Amino acid sequence: MDGRRHPEHYERGNDPARVLTLSDGVFAIVLTLLVLEIQVPDLAQGQTLRDALREVRPSFIAFLISFVVVAIAWAGHRDLFALIGRTDRVLVWLNILYLLPLSILPFGASLLARYTEEPVALQMYGILLVAIALTRLVIWWYATGRSHLLVVPVSARFRREGLALVAAPVFINALAVAIAAEAPTASLVIYAAVPVLYFIAITIARTAAPPGSAEHDLT
Amino acid sequence: MDGRRHPEHYERGNDPARVLTLSDGVFAIVLTLLVLEIQVPDLAQGQTLRDALREVRPSFIAFLISFVVVAIAWAGHRDLFALIGRTDRVLVWLNILYLLPLSILPFGASLLARYTEEPVALQMYGILLVAIALTRLVIWWYATGRSHLLVVPVSARFRREGLALVAAPVFINALAVAIAAEAPTASLVIYAAVPVLYFIAITIARTAAPPGSAEHDLT
Amino acid sequence: MDGRRHPEHYERGNDPARVLTLSDGVFAIVLTLLVLEIQVPDLAQGQTLRDALREVRPSFIAFLISFVVVAIAWAGHRDLFALIGRTDRVLVWLNILYLLPLSILPFGASLLARYTEEPVALQMYGILLVAIALTRLVIWWYATGRSHLLVVPVSARFRREGLALVAAPVFINALAVAIAAEAPTASLVIYAAVPVLYFIAITIARTAAPPGSAEHDLT
Amino acid sequence: MDGRRHPEHYERGNDPARVLTLSDGVFAIVLTLLVLEIQVPDLAQGQTLRDALREVRPSFIAFLISFVVVAIAWAGHRDLFALIGRTDRVLVWLNILYLLPLSILPFGASLLARYTEEPVALQMYGILLVAIALTRLVIWWYATGRSHLLVVPVSARFRREGLALVAAPVFINALAVAIAAEAPTASLVIYAAVPVLYFIAITIARTAAPPGSAEHDLT
Repeated sequence: MDGRRHPEHYERGNDPARVLTLSDGVFAIVLTLLVLEIQVPDLAQGQTLRDALREVRPSFIAFLISFVVVAIAWAGHRDLFALIGRTDRVLVWLNILYLLPLSILPFGASLLARYTEEPVALQMYGILLVAIALTRLVIWWYATGRSHLLVVPVSARFRREGLALVAAPVFINALAVAIAAEAPTASLVIYAAVPVLYFIAITIARTAAPPGSAEHDLT
Repeated sequence: MDGRRHPEHYERGNDPARVLTLSDGVFAIVLTLLVLEIQVPDLAQGQTLRDALREVRPSFIAFLISFVVVAIAWAGHRDLFALIGRTDRVLVWLNILYLLPLSILPFGASLLARYTEEPVALQMYGILLVAIALTRLVIWWYATGRSHLLVVPVSARFRREGLALVAAPVFINALAVAIAAEAPTASLVIYAAVPVLYFIAITIARTAAPPGSAEHDLT
Repeated sequence: MDGRRHPEHYERGNDPARVLTLSDGVFAIVLTLLVLEIQVPDLAQGQTLRDALREVRPSFIAFLISFVVVAIAWAGHRDLFALIGRTDRVLVWLNILYLLPLSILPFGASLLARYTEEPVALQMYGILLVAIALTRLVIWWYATGRSHLLVVPVSARFRREGLALVAAPVFINALAVAIAAEAPTASLVIYAAVPVLYFIAITIARTAAPPGSAEHDLT
Repeated sequence: MDGRRHPEHYERGNDPARVLTLSDGVFAIVLTLLVLEIQVPDLAQGQTLRDALREVRPSFIAFLISFVVVAIAWAGHRDLFALIGRTDRVLVWLNILYLLPLSILPFGASLLARYTEEPVALQMYGILLVAIALTRLVIWWYATGRSHLLVVPVSARFRREGLALVAAPVFINALAVAIAAEAPTASLVIYAAVPVLYFIAITIARTAAPPGSAEHDLT
């Protein structure tokens, strides 16, 4: 052999299969590790378990927000890779960059659960949310613009809508980070509201789309 | 391209493969994380390790019940998705909703292991069991009623039997939650007995079914 | 549809794919969780980190033995399922029964790491090793005797050899459990030696086998 | 059957699929477990959360270096197995040997995070990095030299380049281990710099390679 790449090697080397296995593994583990941040409470003297569990409530809220954030990240990853038939080096490393803030999220959730009212905790958690949305935006932008990576070409309109859908959480969460010092509660409410708004936006995008168009495939 | 969805994109976007990878990941992790709730005991002065391990026994019971609950949830998920050839948005999100109480189960098991006699711990554990059975019921009901999602159509009788098989744990565990304050031990016994009854019921369903019918495929 | 099972449903319902995904997930998690039992040491006054790490050595030994045990269990599982083309209900549940002691192994390893000289810790660890080997023996015996589950028929000689290969660890580890109270060190040495003997036995089985025979496929 | 191996059994027994599932599971878990080493800080009296988080910074650095090391190990594993169409017993066990130091890395990272300035911690962490690179070197050398395991033959030049690419981290990290006692900071800087140098080297290898050659498939 003369050092040229063999077509079969090329196809195998750019097969997205293992990128998906690794990513699904990370998604599944993050989803399940999040619960470890909820501590079984010790009972202080004269305290009932019911009271002690009430104190664990902030952990539950941090858990639920994070669970939904990871689930949305997974659904978006699945929608994107349904379009992708081939990877390249940049896409592989962008994908790893996407997994980075996701894998830090359990730490952010623990921090938030423990110091719910602390601006610094709220800011760090928000920065993770911004990083998750931002890396997702970059992958979407990179992949949908390269037709040799795609199974089928993507319309400019679909591409723009996908970008808008992910750009919104970037800006809204960045805003929540900015106001965390003055209005910690508002900041937390925004983190919880963004997934809800995302569901509404995606439902509208699906409803408004002409029948049979690609938007119907957004999860 | 005019924005219409391409048939190949449609098929890839609705392929259940990644739903299964994510779910199997979560099942495997929950099965394995459960053991982390069993603490290696510290020895009090003059205490032998044998005595200390005896105190860990409630953790073992909570571990075993939870392990069997998760295994049954996995087997039921596998049976259901053997019928499903295509997903839609609702099914994807129902599946995530199913994974939610499963991922909280390690916390519930820890709580139960630590406060075995406490009604609140028994109630929270029972609520998780009810939530697991209930979300499973909803997915079964949703998926088996939509023939475009199924590989082969499902008979009305098979559908009803599947619903009954999962509805029973919902009601029995809900009953156990209701009596936890008055009869904590009875409540715990019920949680342990439900998986046993489930195995008996499924064996009867398989035996009673006419030869060659779909009930034989229940695990 | 008349309630009869559809051939495609039958094949999908008995496909081993998800049994393998779940099992590989559990194997991978157990392999990786084991390290969590090795605690980063706190330094007592005047103690160097080097001394502190020396005290962690029993954890390392427990980790290494357990890692090799899980790796062998995985390799044996892979060899077995290379023969299996179809599952049935019993095989699915035997497989879950096989995963049970494997998922408890991190607890056993922690216990052993902390109480290396304690007969009770050695006995519990040994019982887990016996349970892993015993459930593996039962699956091998069950599956290789049912030709409708197999991709290709298995010779009686190959079946017997496979049984012997797994029966040996059952007996040797059971012996180590029995002597743990009198000779704890001997017991630990046996746990560490069994994997080594297993490798030697499998190498002999491969070498002694006639050229081209199935024994060459044992890992 | 006469004990001879059946061609279909042979192919299934040597299929790399489960080696990849197990490995991707381990990679995903290690990537995600690393974050557990970053402890949510307790606040000392009068300390702000911002100060407390500053003390966690070494954990973050250890986390980031380790995350990149595992990601590179995964990408290299994916590149290698894109070449491999068949496994043999040695390759399966070399792969497990490769997973061993990777699964210990979270312990090494915890140790480094806690005792950043301690030569012993730096040495142990570096030994893990050397072991990861060394086992990777051995697998590459073993697999690329056995054409019956490969999908397509590999050119001698490509094989040599692959060896050089992995041999470099072995030597550089070994050097960092050697100087850890005298120059702990330099040692840590080297651990952080090796991944950066690796990216530069791989980019050069891709750029320098003749158009269409196999080097372009390195990730």
